[in-house]
Amino acid sequence: MEAMGGMEKVDIRAATAALDEFWSQQVIGEANGNLFKVAKGSGSTNWHKHDDEDEVFFVYKGRLTIQLRTGNVELSEGDMFIVPRGVEHCPRADDEVHLLLVGPTVTSTREGGKPDWSLE
Amino acid sequence: MEAMGGMEKVDIRAATAALDEFWSQQVIGEANGNLFKVAKGSGSTNWHKHDDEDEVFFVYKGRLTIQLRTGNVELSEGDMFIVPRGVEHCPRADDEVHLLLVGPTVTSTREGGKPDWSLE
Repeated sequence: MEAMGGMEKVDIRAATAALDEFWSQQVIGEANGNLFKVAKGSGSTNWHKHDDEDEVFFVYKGRLTIQLRTGNVELSEGDMFIVPRGVEHCPRADDEVHLLLVGPTVTSTREGGKPDWSLE
Repeated sequence: MEAMGGMEKVDIRAATAALDEFWSQQVIGEANGNLFKVAKGSGSTNWHKHDDEDEVFFVYKGRLTIQLRTGNVELSEGDMFIVPRGVEHCPRADDEVHLLLVGPTVTSTREGGKPDWSLE
């Protein structure tokens, strides 16, 4: 990240590469009541929902399957998908995926579907 | 875009390619009080600021120079930058740039810096 009079640009590829844990969100910015976060995923999370916030997924690298009770949504590089508040979902990556996420809070918690194997 | 029980994924590359005007934002989603928008830019906008909203720029393709009164910020593919509310800025692209933008409103207006040549 490059300091710039209190403002800094973020290279999301570098920010994601620096992550040492799957399904852990790193905040890279805040604007208009929302956090901008990067995460890398591999394997499956657990089924969960967020009652008070929509969750925005943007796939920067790789592929992500967002399992919904109504069926799966398959996301590739450059795809964005919004899981509305209250909707059960279970993101899964068969290979490593790099994500940009947007929402009011950090949701990489047990309640937010983070799998036990990644909670250390 | 792919309909999916009221939810749809968006391929931002395709959404950007479909734009027929520079510096015009196309809304591709809404979440948590913010709009997710794509735009393509070429040439310079005009100096402006947004008093009530932060503006998030994410460069998906190409390069963007965000001119600030304190100096220029040079963004490449994969870079994100947040212009805080009230900060004067003037985005400029020497070549065509494709952007993902996030904020509460559509800001591609004359007041939002959209240049006269692109207002038709």
